[in-house]
Amino acid sequence: MVDIQKTSNSKIDKVNFDDLVFGQVFTDHMMECDYRDGKWQKPVIKPYGPLSLDPSAKVLHYGQAVFEGMKAYKDKDENIWLFRPDENFKRINRSSKRLAIPEFPEDYFFESLNALLKLDSEWIQKGFGNSLYIRPFVIATEKGVSASPAKEYKFMIICSPAQAYYSGEVRVKFSEDYSRAADGGVGFAKAAGNYGAQFFPTNIAKEEGFQQIVWTDANAHEFLEEAGTMNIFFRIGDKLVTAPISDRILDGVTRKSVLQLADEYNIETEVRRVTVKEIVEAAKKGELKEMFGSGTATVINPISGFGYKGEKYELPKLEDSYARFFKDKLMKIQYNEAEDKFGWRYKVK
Amino acid sequence: MVDIQKTSNSKIDKVNFDDLVFGQVFTDHMMECDYRDGKWQKPVIKPYGPLSLDPSAKVLHYGQAVFEGMKAYKDKDENIWLFRPDENFKRINRSSKRLAIPEFPEDYFFESLNALLKLDSEWIQKGFGNSLYIRPFVIATEKGVSASPAKEYKFMIICSPAQAYYSGEVRVKFSEDYSRAADGGVGFAKAAGNYGAQFFPTNIAKEEGFQQIVWTDANAHEFLEEAGTMNIFFRIGDKLVTAPISDRILDGVTRKSVLQLADEYNIETEVRRVTVKEIVEAAKKGELKEMFGSGTATVINPISGFGYKGEKYELPKLEDSYARFFKDKLMKIQYNEAEDKFGWRYKVK
Repeated sequence: MVDIQKTSNSKIDKVNFDDLVFGQVFTDHMMECDYRDGKWQKPVIKPYGPLSLDPSAKVLHYGQAVFEGMKAYKDKDENIWLFRPDENFKRINRSSKRLAIPEFPEDYFFESLNALLKLDSEWIQKGFGNSLYIRPFVIATEKGVSASPAKEYKFMIICSPAQAYYSGEVRVKFSEDYSRAADGGVGFAKAAGNYGAQFFPTNIAKEEGFQQIVWTDANAHEFLEEAGTMNIFFRIGDKLVTAPISDRILDGVTRKSVLQLADEYNIETEVRRVTVKEIVEAAKKGELKEMFGSGTATVINPISGFGYKGEKYELPKLEDSYARFFKDKLMKIQYNEAEDKFGWRYKVK
Repeated sequence: MVDIQKTSNSKIDKVNFDDLVFGQVFTDHMMECDYRDGKWQKPVIKPYGPLSLDPSAKVLHYGQAVFEGMKAYKDKDENIWLFRPDENFKRINRSSKRLAIPEFPEDYFFESLNALLKLDSEWIQKGFGNSLYIRPFVIATEKGVSASPAKEYKFMIICSPAQAYYSGEVRVKFSEDYSRAADGGVGFAKAAGNYGAQFFPTNIAKEEGFQQIVWTDANAHEFLEEAGTMNIFFRIGDKLVTAPISDRILDGVTRKSVLQLADEYNIETEVRRVTVKEIVEAAKKGELKEMFGSGTATVINPISGFGYKGEKYELPKLEDSYARFFKDKLMKIQYNEAEDKFGWRYKVK
């Protein structure tokens, strides 16, 4: 079903897999599938290369664009695994629907993804922490500067080899003025416009010594929501607390996996709205033991402190960190080194 | 200062200027200016044609993109005029700043815009209502799928000939669930992502018999804000009411010109938050005489009715319509047929 055009000129020998910057190097091939005349055409796998777009293409003017982030892992026996790819597939279609983009067929997605990963399988390095970051995305390609949904789109998959991700000490700022999403808006979708909108406030936070922002509700900045590229967990005492998903908060695959693992290992969880006030108070009393982010790129990202209203709060360094516990459990499942009780692993074939 | 590469192959003879679909046909040339190595390079005017973008270009993934809409008008003596272009120039830089895009130099903007309009001046048709729609825009072109501001951009100007715009009877729906913008968000900016996010709710409204949505505040949907491509005015009795600009509402050039003209012609105005409740009540009592939208593409767009909570409200057809009054006043200034008391006209040279 997939049309495959192989490159005669692999770039793989020029890549230093021990010195990769995240998301900069791409594999030899990419998947491209056009939507026109009211339907998705045949997916094509072809050499990675530039796109030709009309300067009036709607993606450039009206942000009609969504994406996903996934990873492929190679185990010791050279098997290639994905982690809950059905969740990413369903989510890109939920995102597409909200952006008035036609949904993509499930068989096109999985057949072309399997074919692409097999073709570029040498780009997936073995070793705990190494992976291939997979970026499916959809863009509106139809030309024309009238503000209306496009009739032509491209669904694409590009892949970038990634090393174990150490982001250093991460401190976050709780947002006091700026917002990421509105009730009734597109915050739950992986819509392109949600990301560009965060860069300016994040630059300000960086100047103040933070690496990321934890977004709060736009109404009163009372509730802690998500970090834009990660969902956020709080450990108060030994209880794990995180905000419920909503139309403002992304339904993170790693987030929901952490919640299931917590249940499995009898860690008490609460999925409820989390106030800035209670976290600040818990930090002051020493009851806030941990914060961490969850997301595909980083898996689990420990947070060493936060800032709010000019005050900085440092978190303790724990021996029995939940962040480390979940990261280890998740990665062992992802790399086929532990039992897959929940049926999360998907074997590329 | 501008590098000009003329086409040897004009398309103008193939264009039927009496049968134009808005935003579909583009002139022979376009302006392109690259940002790299920390600065804007020399603007280039060259034949209109496709862009080559890496599939990982940040505009396609993170919506780092802003635009403007302007028009050029040709008077009876073949002079070409713009309407308050300084406002568009300042606004694209305000939008850019919020999207973490480097601001564009004023002299680059005006010199290249003048040169482009002179080169493609035959594309601007005389006749009241005919114009050239001008679309300046900026996109993040740097490759890489990490969610951070790009270091490379393109500032472009493309132009599309437009006829007098008759959009038919426009009925609007007051939004009850969906939202366009959050406090502390990017609603005030002409950010690409603000537009794609409106398409799905607008499709639903269209199925219900409305052409556009008037967005309400995301918190409680109590206040009427803007229509996504137009600011909105209400005439209650003989008073003209419109919402104040905010971080959710675009500072429309036509909107502010209407307010200035109203002052000039002793029409009472109120710039204040407008509740859905008062407009519904005014409509029921027959006190809501008119509603209209203002924006560059349409100038003034009369609204013949609105819908809210399943009820439809029709507005009277007036002899002494404010919409018609302001449209006539504005267009006569734009086409150099009336005195330009406020210094709004800008002559292309």
